[in-house]
Amino acid sequence: MLDITKMRNFVDEHTDNAIQDLFKLLKIPTVSAKGREHTPAILAELNRIFADLGFETNVFRTKGDSVFTAVLDNQKPKTLLFYNHFDVQPAEPLEKWFSPPFEPQIRDGKIYARGVADNKGDIITRVYAIKMLQDLQGELPVNIKFLIEGEEETGSQNLPEFEEKQPDFIKTADACIWECGGKNASQRQEIWAGMKGILYVQLKTSGSKKDLHSALNAIIENPAEHLVSVLASLKDDKTDRILIPGFYEDVLPPSEELLRTIDGIEMDLEKQKAQWGVKELKGGTDRTKVLRNYYLNPTCNICGIWSGWQGSGAKTVLPAEAHAKMDFRLVPKQNSEDILQKLRRYLANQKYEIEIEWAEGYSPGHTPLSDPFVSLLKTCMTEVYAHEPIVHPWNPGSGPIYLFTNQLPVLSIGVGNAGSSAHGPNENIEIGDFKLGQICIARVIERMGKD
Amino acid sequence: MLDITKMRNFVDEHTDNAIQDLFKLLKIPTVSAKGREHTPAILAELNRIFADLGFETNVFRTKGDSVFTAVLDNQKPKTLLFYNHFDVQPAEPLEKWFSPPFEPQIRDGKIYARGVADNKGDIITRVYAIKMLQDLQGELPVNIKFLIEGEEETGSQNLPEFEEKQPDFIKTADACIWECGGKNASQRQEIWAGMKGILYVQLKTSGSKKDLHSALNAIIENPAEHLVSVLASLKDDKTDRILIPGFYEDVLPPSEELLRTIDGIEMDLEKQKAQWGVKELKGGTDRTKVLRNYYLNPTCNICGIWSGWQGSGAKTVLPAEAHAKMDFRLVPKQNSEDILQKLRRYLANQKYEIEIEWAEGYSPGHTPLSDPFVSLLKTCMTEVYAHEPIVHPWNPGSGPIYLFTNQLPVLSIGVGNAGSSAHGPNENIEIGDFKLGQICIARVIERMGKD
Repeated sequence: MLDITKMRNFVDEHTDNAIQDLFKLLKIPTVSAKGREHTPAILAELNRIFADLGFETNVFRTKGDSVFTAVLDNQKPKTLLFYNHFDVQPAEPLEKWFSPPFEPQIRDGKIYARGVADNKGDIITRVYAIKMLQDLQGELPVNIKFLIEGEEETGSQNLPEFEEKQPDFIKTADACIWECGGKNASQRQEIWAGMKGILYVQLKTSGSKKDLHSALNAIIENPAEHLVSVLASLKDDKTDRILIPGFYEDVLPPSEELLRTIDGIEMDLEKQKAQWGVKELKGGTDRTKVLRNYYLNPTCNICGIWSGWQGSGAKTVLPAEAHAKMDFRLVPKQNSEDILQKLRRYLANQKYEIEIEWAEGYSPGHTPLSDPFVSLLKTCMTEVYAHEPIVHPWNPGSGPIYLFTNQLPVLSIGVGNAGSSAHGPNENIEIGDFKLGQICIARVIERMGKD
Repeated sequence: MLDITKMRNFVDEHTDNAIQDLFKLLKIPTVSAKGREHTPAILAELNRIFADLGFETNVFRTKGDSVFTAVLDNQKPKTLLFYNHFDVQPAEPLEKWFSPPFEPQIRDGKIYARGVADNKGDIITRVYAIKMLQDLQGELPVNIKFLIEGEEETGSQNLPEFEEKQPDFIKTADACIWECGGKNASQRQEIWAGMKGILYVQLKTSGSKKDLHSALNAIIENPAEHLVSVLASLKDDKTDRILIPGFYEDVLPPSEELLRTIDGIEMDLEKQKAQWGVKELKGGTDRTKVLRNYYLNPTCNICGIWSGWQGSGAKTVLPAEAHAKMDFRLVPKQNSEDILQKLRRYLANQKYEIEIEWAEGYSPGHTPLSDPFVSLLKTCMTEVYAHEPIVHPWNPGSGPIYLFTNQLPVLSIGVGNAGSSAHGPNENIEIGDFKLGQICIARVIERMGKD
């Protein structure tokens, strides 16, 4: 296996090129929530990058956005699959960014841009790890596949179509490294062995076709009040328990081993609170309680709400309609379709009509912590980062990992950190992590070839 | 007194001029909720219009916007005061207007523009009524005063300052005609003998300084949930009763006479529902119940709410903050300051911090229906419109009428109609009403001089 110092030197020499390639991806505003107009541009970039390394590339057209695949078949017994996505979250609120989100900027050793942590930084990290092995060793000891989709941030609605039409693509790999990750607020590297599922819905209540004079509230119902009243009824605000009938029905009671793993996870609550900018956590100062809430609790969250007059001053209207966006994070073995049905039934029983304007989501998925791929990653990371990584049973965030976890071990690592502000303003990664990430991925490929 | 036909001919001849003057006012976007930048322009127009008629004009500077006054002192024993305002409601949502709100347009015998019904149309109606009497009779039989403020749509915060500094201006008048009004869905003219009071507040809840990843809802409180939960708690959604402690404490139980008046008010529920675009009213199909709700019930209404992601698609955030705008319509003898204190106390007792970002309002006020000015107006209107007007004890809307009603009788009439969409998109008046309104006001002045 390659000497770490030699790898470090190689990475140092090639960092400018890697950052250039990364910037090219970051400048393309592939916000899937806003449409697909930038897909051709990023597919062209990805094709150039992977073709340069000798990959056979392909674009699979779905009903929605395209899935990009790249395969490097070295005729080796084992195959490592990387899952990434070329789409990013919307950058709003723009006024909170110190530099424009799609004009990447380096400040104080960090790269700032929408999507740099989630997950374009990881795409380039992986690409340059492969380039390093090719340059320093000639041939890779395993076959490599990339699956890079364009709808991860909007629910990966069409990834099942890819999986159905090309059932061998995922199945024939031996292990998968998921899109992103990084180090926590205490600078400890993390491995995520799964993800929560998600159900995202947009709700609407309606009254008149137009905003009415607010004095009419004495005799006309207000759709904003109906929405607010139903949203408030979804959770017991004392216990934080979700009140949709049957919501917890399929939640798997945690095993003793899972509880031990969670209780053992390193998380400095004070540092995390400072990072997130909050004074309190649900669970208070009880570390065990907070950690168990974080990993084991499904959620019911208002992502956005809007109705009526939001401008300055006092406009006295009774709004015509009201909307809310919500997400529910799901834990094993909740099923996103089933939770949607339960929500529908709950809403149908309300006094006023609540419309589900649209819904999307996927179920949770995870890899058993006893899987040998977990040990392999731990070994590599301990070597590269000089400390043992924390292994999380799953990420409290979500991804379409369930399509993969029932076929092969899937673990998520990456080059972000606790202050990366993924999904928020001023998203960033540290250049140091970007460089070490390349060495780490190269080591994983080497070790997988030796196993 | 002038012959109605002669008056009608005069109005017909001068309608083009009147509409030209009206358009000049309508083109100035005096949205008080957005600031005062257009005040100088409209003051210049008002000054020109009133100076042309021989009025002595004045601009009173307050801490907020200016109050324009115009006085025509004919050395007569009686003085009639007109209260109007030169500000208008915001025109949003702009996409619902068929023609731009500040580019007045005539279609099908109607004038469309923001503020035409509330209440620039009434200003010009009154101006041209005076012009008619001057042209046809030489001198007016009463003295005339106008008080035209610029903050009616944002709570008339500084009118009390005017009243305090110039205490004689209102007091020395014998009667006042309030800003606006018109005919109902059954084409019956209406007189409003008062107005509900109003308290308008903007509320805010806060979490982190930035939007967070929504997966954190498992351990971090969501300020949008707090806001929604408090808003939902303000009213019993079965009985529509407001749950702020002491809210109804000062509500005057209605006298038998008031109930009789309200029960006798003509309102075609079916027509009104069609006009408002709603299928149901609070009180159902029980006319008496609906009418009593409308006049006697104070309200608690969400005018607007906003938090987090409102763009397209699925952005998964835990919002940094949430806001709501609310208005409370108050009935005799509730007091806006007192209700604000009660709301403050209620919010202070909630589990989470709710900030009142700002608040403004005024108390209700009304003129006894036995006042001789009520009979005078009824007589004039019956003559001009060929039917007896409906007298409402007060308007379910609000205005700073309490500053006037404790000093002189105040009645509101105007040139709007049930489909005028005051405060909404496509605000309009009928040109026919604009013309008849001039005759009506002229007749009121004539009769007042005879009394």
